[in-house]
Parts: sequence; structure tokens; C-alpha cells
Amino acid sequence: MKKISTLLLSLIVGYGYAQTADSVTIRKMYDEALARGKSYEWLRYLTKQIGPRLSGSAGAQKAVDWTKQIMEQQGFDRVFLQDVMVPHWVRGAKEEAYIQNGKQKITVPIAALGGSVATGPKGVNAGVIEVKSFAELRAMSTDKVKGKIVFYNRPMDPTKINTFEAYGGAVEQRANGATEAAKLGAVGAIVRSMNPRHDDYPHVGGMRYATGVPLIPTAAISTNGADLLSKLLQENPNLTFYFKENCETLPDAKSYNVVGEIKGSEKPDEIIVVGGHLDSWDLAEGAQDDGAGCMQSIEVLRLFKALGIKPKRTIRAVMFMNEENGLRGGVQYADLAKKNNEKHMAAVESDAGGFTPRGFGIVGTPEQRAKVMPWKPLLAPYGLLEIGPGGGGADIGPLAQLGTVLFGFKPDSQRYFDYHHTAVDNFEAVSQRELELGAASMAALVYLLDQYGL
Amino acid sequence: MKKISTLLLSLIVGYGYAQTADSVTIRKMYDEALARGKSYEWLRYLTKQIGPRLSGSAGAQKAVDWTKQIMEQQGFDRVFLQDVMVPHWVRGAKEEAYIQNGKQKITVPIAALGGSVATGPKGVNAGVIEVKSFAELRAMSTDKVKGKIVFYNRPMDPTKINTFEAYGGAVEQRANGATEAAKLGAVGAIVRSMNPRHDDYPHVGGMRYATGVPLIPTAAISTNGADLLSKLLQENPNLTFYFKENCETLPDAKSYNVVGEIKGSEKPDEIIVVGGHLDSWDLAEGAQDDGAGCMQSIEVLRLFKALGIKPKRTIRAVMFMNEENGLRGGVQYADLAKKNNEKHMAAVESDAGGFTPRGFGIVGTPEQRAKVMPWKPLLAPYGLLEIGPGGGGADIGPLAQLGTVLFGFKPDSQRYFDYHHTAVDNFEAVSQRELELGAASMAALVYLLDQYGL
Repeated sequence: MKKISTLLLSLIVGYGYAQTADSVTIRKMYDEALARGKSYEWLRYLTKQIGPRLSGSAGAQKAVDWTKQIMEQQGFDRVFLQDVMVPHWVRGAKEEAYIQNGKQKITVPIAALGGSVATGPKGVNAGVIEVKSFAELRAMSTDKVKGKIVFYNRPMDPTKINTFEAYGGAVEQRANGATEAAKLGAVGAIVRSMNPRHDDYPHVGGMRYATGVPLIPTAAISTNGADLLSKLLQENPNLTFYFKENCETLPDAKSYNVVGEIKGSEKPDEIIVVGGHLDSWDLAEGAQDDGAGCMQSIEVLRLFKALGIKPKRTIRAVMFMNEENGLRGGVQYADLAKKNNEKHMAAVESDAGGFTPRGFGIVGTPEQRAKVMPWKPLLAPYGLLEIGPGGGGADIGPLAQLGTVLFGFKPDSQRYFDYHHTAVDNFEAVSQRELELGAASMAALVYLLDQYGL
Repeated sequence: MKKISTLLLSLIVGYGYAQTADSVTIRKMYDEALARGKSYEWLRYLTKQIGPRLSGSAGAQKAVDWTKQIMEQQGFDRVFLQDVMVPHWVRGAKEEAYIQNGKQKITVPIAALGGSVATGPKGVNAGVIEVKSFAELRAMSTDKVKGKIVFYNRPMDPTKINTFEAYGGAVEQRANGATEAAKLGAVGAIVRSMNPRHDDYPHVGGMRYATGVPLIPTAAISTNGADLLSKLLQENPNLTFYFKENCETLPDAKSYNVVGEIKGSEKPDEIIVVGGHLDSWDLAEGAQDDGAGCMQSIEVLRLFKALGIKPKRTIRAVMFMNEENGLRGGVQYADLAKKNNEKHMAAVESDAGGFTPRGFGIVGTPEQRAKVMPWKPLLAPYGLLEIGPGGGGADIGPLAQLGTVLFGFKPDSQRYFDYHHTAVDNFEAVSQRELELGAASMAALVYLLDQYGL
């Protein structure tokens, strides 16, 4: 009954809130975002005029300059950069790969995983061991794996309702597959794309090597390519796989987080962050991941200004750098906050795509979460019905150590991994209304956080 | 407090249900639909192999034959056709339209509205009166409007969170615009497309004439075209508009509702209908409207069979014919049900697109709705959080007179009107996961309706 009593209390208190001017203000935020929002046109510029923004690239630097300029043009009280050194991995010339099945040579789409070493100019050509899990691999003898390419082919579980769960259940293959394979003497690792669809696009993403284990090259293969390879392996376990990739890790490069803020009128020293990450993978425009979240975050501050709402606390839009392959920006932001004795009350991240809003996940104590519950009736009319414990976001994660309460914006997850880290994550993948609804939803939460604290 | 007590009671009862085998069965339905569902591949066939299915067309007949065949192949207990005479309107050769602005001739995309008369071979060429509402038009003198083309340019309200509300607020221009214009002597009516986006696709749809009022030709213009026409009219109120359309209403044609059923094991005389409409507009493949709903409905019955669930009541998948421009199939279905003394306990319609499920709207008495509330905890894990009073569906509407409780499947509405009645409503507009989740959601509701009645 305890659970129900808490809910009951929440509802009663909630009905009170709903009668207040807060509902009017929130309605105005949605009206402004939906009728005159800027996030979509900004996203068009970021994706079409700037494009891919992998850490250390010219595109990333252009995005830093441009988002700084946009926030200055909006007349935010302060816009500044935070220096951060980032990994600088480059793909080099396009990869090549084929299955050699007897006399048949079948080209398949692959893409080097971020951080992978190159194959060398001659590429890697070897037999293939298909596995669905690390456990399956570890049960094999070194003799069987040595000199081979390990092919990880565990799909995202289609029966998970939230696709992030399915991703979480498969992504270790990408992150640690090369190392696990190298431990048994493999010469390469090919990983089925983290993609719920059957198509021809490799989905890249970060991977890491472990110290003391040989560095072997690794790549993602499209889901259709993986299905084909698996089928042919059934028929002919002795086929070989060839792949060549030309990637390289250069020395760390200088880059920046970009921060815009509106100064609080009553408690300027209490900060609320709203942010996304400015870097993207290199194969596409980084529209859903995470141009959307960045543009929404700037829009949140613009909505406050457009509606003449003067926040009590300081509100910051943060474009974090290097979420994709290092998280250096997120770590740097928290380090500087600590060093400067800044008090970050709350942080909201949008890094799950610009899809229709469903709610927010909260990382905080039960008491902190309980303070949010009375706001539910104010957010429900906008479809924000899933508000409760959940993930915050990678970039804001390091702020947790400062006692900051973290909020992960939770849009509908069904289509996110169709685009994630692949050549189709372009502007066309984003719906204007869905994007704008997300911006307004984040603004509504930030408004309530500012009004009532935690 | 009454509202809260009811909710509290629902929750307590709900927690009981959630412990039962129902949750296991529903989980299996989602697992089956997401891992081995057929709706997406069926939809591919319906859209790519059959294509547009306007009432009376060869495509509509092919769809009748094919859905009958598919349901027979699934081994449903009975598959049958219901004869129905439908309107047979044809577009004819592609429309032409341009703005004549001084010496400048600017082509704009239009499409005749369903049911419109043709312009005649010379087309219509006249000055333009732009209005945003019937009230604005009616306030004008006949002198001003006579011999002119009335241009209805009220957009869908972007601030409505549910796009169906925005559609409802604009669609009278399309449905009755020609008649209202003709009353004042206009020679044509051009209607801004019911489209939340700014693009170049005219959105068609049904319109009707009133007896005793001249029949004047009418067409939809793309939103970009409407914006341009409005802008040029501001600069030059004397510009003229030319349009030519070649549509024709032929004699009514014979067509069919297609019905498949699984016989109830305990109460075979109590029927639960799940359906969508098989006809579509002629400009595209009719994927979201309403191929999706049809394929989901057949999938509901397939899920019962695949999981070995023998329903107590008879469950029917109904492919209604002619929702778009006549509703003859829906009316005929209810007429036959009445004539045959069939008892239809409930009907579920999917005609809002194959998008991520959000819930169900219920048309019934408060007591009937109250019987559904205890099921909420069983449906919530699947994102079905919006369950309450709401629209049922056009095709099942006529069943209300027989006391049938109507359920409208409610997917996310944000993208529906991007595609609705336009050349881009094709297979590619549909997400496999979203479609399959919808089918499982409908199956879950039908399962509970069958288990517990109303």
C-alpha cells in the first residue's frame, strides 16, 4: 500500500499545481516551440552545412564555432568555451571487405569501429569463427580461434520494448569484442551492427583495447551482411573473410565544450544544465545522435528568453564534446565545476534522439525523485507519462559525484537504432514536430526545476 | 476525491490481474509479433505489389482477393466477403495548375479532391479570393466572390499536441469548401493541404457537394504552394489562378468487405471485431492509411493461432471497404450485423497509422469504460498509457447503434499527417517495430476483451 499512498499523495498535490500559473507557462512554451521554434532550422544548418563532427575533425571545430555564434546571437547572458583535449581517430580511405566462398567472392558492407587499429595495406584474410557470446568464445580452445577472424553475431533482442535495453544487451560485442578475440589469438573481429533492422548499413561506435592484449583490427558489418555470412558459414565453415581498413589514431586534439547561460535572478550560483553532445560519428550528419539534443538544448534557453521568463537559477545549455569516443567533454565539464566550486542542482541531457517525448528518467535519491512527482499532472497533457527512475545521460554522468540530480530526456525509442551511428543519421531522419515537442518538454522540466528546486 | 478513489481501486484490482497468467500471455503476444510478426511483410506485399486501392479500382479488387487469400492461408475458421456497392470516382489525367502573376507563370502542385467534378477541358482561370474561414467568406458580398476562385488557407494549428485535433480544426475547408464558395458564385475552390509540414505534396481527401448548390471543381494545393500563392496575393491581389482537373464520378461499383474469423469456443455468438480499411487514396500505396491497420488486424488473429490461444468469443478481422470516400463498407457491415441478429460486443479499429502505440480511445458508457480500467497495469509495460474516452473509428462507428463498445487504437500522432492522403504514404513511411508493436497491442486488448467481457 505504501506505493499507492505515495502515488495518491502525489496526485492530490499534483492537482493543486495543475491549477496554478505553471500550466499556463508550460503551455506557452509548447506553443512557442511548435509555432515558432528554432531547433529544426538550426538542426538543418548543423547537419547540412556542417555535417559530420567526429572529435578532432574540422567539422567538430566548425560546430563549436557555429553553436557559440548562435548562442551569442540569441543574446544569452554569457557564452563561453571550455578547453578539452580529445581523442583524434580518423577512418582514412573507405574499408573493403568480402567473403571468399570457394571461387565466389561476395562484397559486404563494413566500417571500422572507432578506435580500431588498421589492418595494414594488405588487409586481413582468414577463416571465420562465428559466436553469439563471449561465453561461447571463451569455451573454445586457442587452437580453434588462433589466426582466425571472430565474427560476433548476437542480434539486438527484438522482443525488448525499449530498444536501449536491446542495445545494452548486444553492445559488449562491439566494445570489447576485439580484445576478447585477441586473447585467444584471433587476428580480427567482425561485429554484427547494433541495428534492429535488416539493411545494408554498418553501424559504427566506440570500442576499446585492454592493456597487455594484442590490438587487432575490428569492424562492424551490416545486418544483411551478417545474416549472409552466417548462412554461408553454415554451408561452408571453411570460407574466408577479407577486410581492409585504413584508420589511424592521431595525437589528441584540442577541442571545446560550448556553454551558453542565462543568469539566475535569485540564486545565480545554483546551476541547471541542459545539454547534448556536439560530436558525432563520421559516416553521416549526426542528426538524431546528437544534433537533435544540442539544438533542443539551445532552444530551451531561447524559449525562456522569447517568453520573458527570468529564471531564479542560472540555466546553461551545454554542447558537450566527445561523447562518442572518450567522454572527455563530460568529464572536463564536471572537473571544472568541481574546481570552480559551482553548485549544479540538476542536469538534463537529450541524447536518445529527437523523437516524440515519453518522459524523463531520473538519477537521484528517492527523496529527490519524490519532489518531481507532483509535477506529473503538469507534464501529462504533453504525453510525458514515463517519469521515474532511469538513466540520465553519459555527458552529465560525471556531475553525479557533485550531488547533481540527473535527468535523461526519454523520447520514443523505436526508431533510434535504425539511424544510430550509421550513414542514414541525417536531417531527413528527424521529424520537425517530434524535435520541437522534445525541446518544449525539456524546457518545461527545466522551468519546474527552477521554480521549485529539488 | 471520487476520481482518485476510482483510480486507487483500479490500481489495487490491477495489481491482482498483473499477477495472473494474463501478463504472461500478453508478453508472448509481443514476443511473437516482434520476433516473428507477419504484418510488415504483408504490408510490403499490399503496398508494393498491389499499391493504391481507391474504391472501385482494380487495386481495391486485388486487395480484396489477396487479403481473402492470406486469411485463408492462415487457416482461420471462416473467411468470407460481404458485397457492398461503392462510389467510383477516378482522377483521370494528372492535374495542371499555375499562378499567373503579371507576365510570370508559376506552376504549383495540386490534386483534385475526391468527389470533385472536373474543370472541363479548358480548365478554370480566375482571380483569387483568399480566406481563412467560412465566417470570413460569408462576410463577403457575392459581387466580390462571383466568378472567382476561393482559396482556403487556414493551416492545421501547429500548437495542438495531438495532430488529429489540428486536422479536425482545418478539414471542413476540404470537406465543404467548394459548396460554401459556390453559394457565393465562385467558380472553383483551392484548399491548403491538411499537412503540418511545408512541402510540395498535395494532400487529397473526400469532399461533398450539397443539393441545390452548383458543383464547382475543387483541389488541394501543397502547403508550399499555398504559402507562395498567399504571398503573391499580398503583392498582387489581381493575379489569376489556372487549374485543370479531369476527374469523373462513374456509376457505383461492386466491391467487398473481407472478413476472417476464429470461432469462439464458449460464446461463439458474441463477436469481437478488429479492423482497418482496405481502400486507400490513389496517389500512393496507402501504407499508413490504412494498409497498416488492415495488416495489424489480420496479425491479431494470427497471433491467437500462433500462440494456441482459443478465444471464448468469436474474433473477426474485418477489412472494411470505402472508408475514404463513402464509408459504405462500415455501414454495410453494421447493417448485416443487425439483419443477422449478430451480437457485437466490441470493435477495435486501427486507422491512425502504424506508429508507436500510446493507448486506446473508448466509446462506451462510463460503466463499460470502467471495466477496462483494471487492465491498465497489464498494458502499461508496453507504453499503452493513454486509455480513456476517445474516438473509436469511422468504419466501426455504425456498430455503435447495436450497442457495441468501440475502441480506437491510438498510436503516436506526430507523423501521421505528414503522409496522410498524399504521394508519400508508401511502405517506406512505416517502421517495422512500430507496426508490430501496434499489432501486439491490439491483440492484447482483444485478448482481455475476450477473457473478461464488458
